[in-house]
Amino acid sequence: MGEKKAVVLLSGGLDSTTVMAVAKQQGFAVYALSFDYGQNHRIELEFAARVAAAAGVVRHAVVKVDLRAFGGSALTSDTPVPKGRSAEDMGHGVPVTYVPARNTVFLSLALAWAETLEATDIFIGVNALDYSGYPDCRPEFIEAFERLANLATKMGTEDGKRLTIHTPLIALTKRQIVELGLSLGVDYGMTITCYDPSATGAACGACDACLLRLKGFAEAGVVDPATYRHFVRFSTR
Amino acid sequence: MGEKKAVVLLSGGLDSTTVMAVAKQQGFAVYALSFDYGQNHRIELEFAARVAAAAGVVRHAVVKVDLRAFGGSALTSDTPVPKGRSAEDMGHGVPVTYVPARNTVFLSLALAWAETLEATDIFIGVNALDYSGYPDCRPEFIEAFERLANLATKMGTEDGKRLTIHTPLIALTKRQIVELGLSLGVDYGMTITCYDPSATGAACGACDACLLRLKGFAEAGVVDPATYRHFVRFSTR
Repeated sequence: MGEKKAVVLLSGGLDSTTVMAVAKQQGFAVYALSFDYGQNHRIELEFAARVAAAAGVVRHAVVKVDLRAFGGSALTSDTPVPKGRSAEDMGHGVPVTYVPARNTVFLSLALAWAETLEATDIFIGVNALDYSGYPDCRPEFIEAFERLANLATKMGTEDGKRLTIHTPLIALTKRQIVELGLSLGVDYGMTITCYDPSATGAACGACDACLLRLKGFAEAGVVDPATYRHFVRFSTR
Repeated sequence: MGEKKAVVLLSGGLDSTTVMAVAKQQGFAVYALSFDYGQNHRIELEFAARVAAAAGVVRHAVVKVDLRAFGGSALTSDTPVPKGRSAEDMGHGVPVTYVPARNTVFLSLALAWAETLEATDIFIGVNALDYSGYPDCRPEFIEAFERLANLATKMGTEDGKRLTIHTPLIALTKRQIVELGLSLGVDYGMTITCYDPSATGAACGACDACLLRLKGFAEAGVVDPATYRHFVRFSTR
């Protein structure tokens, strides 16, 4: 076939599902990779499996990594997820939902799979504008990882191939991400973004992730097809 | 106390056990980190637990990472481990015992723990001389990871702290490593280096790792106190 393979990091959320659609559109055979890292919102793995199947990926792998052993984040411990914060609050400092070195760990595991598959392309849905204060979502971080990847592997070392970390969303607003995904036929009703969903996968509508998502849909002038636990009233101002 | 914390990657082998002794000697409170990554030589985790206890570490964490899901290495699959290779054979190309992106994955997880502990020091026993053809044991790789680590974390970003990856063995021969460890009181009888040990932890004496280790002891003029399955005859030429 000669179809190029790409490893796509997939959480089952709005951003990574959009990235998967971009990789498909660019002609890649997609190997979707999700992580069971002790997240409290484990239901996202069911969403990831469904969106991967809907996108027709070659394979969807779920790798267990035991980040809970380290503690240190509201996403993997009993620390409450903050609710109802303003955009200004979100813009200051690193939030408690930060998982230590998460994107470094996830990209490293994507690199391990890419090397096994002899794939030279990795896609990740990081976003520097609406990034909610995470240091490992910045362009400098991605560039440093790409440099590392090319020193770390047989591919970068012996085979003369070059590994590329694709970040198609890095300069987009949430509104632009929603518009991009809709133009590629993404069904956002199958995705989940919430840090604190119900047992059936209904979003809370109040955590940072929900608020950023709802703002994106509101600005795009589109109703978010995801299921929320409450009636959500949202202003773009 | 003000004692500085360090995360030390510990396999239970000759190199990492020596590195742990170096970290202790430098006054660090040691947090030893081992990985259950589906390696066939899982018995090394028992050795790691024993050498960590003997060294008086603050904590020894064993993190499960499911690298076996990716396949691609003799260390995590049924591919036979090569035996009886000459130094010249080992020096050519990347061996089948290479685990894809292993040190990238392990250092990423060490970074995650370091960030949780607010530790700015990570120790790893990579070795560029007797490195057996692994791209992720080279100084350029370590420098690239250190750069990445300082972009990836809250520490490097907000707190003005600087993460350091310590590689005290990187320029040493196996002989020098053995001599360093003996000078620090390391009991190498408690360590295991073999890629293909017996169920009771006896080394095969013939895989690349055993041959490099035996060469180091022979050159240091010391008998290796580890248990081997057979009588091992070894020449330094």
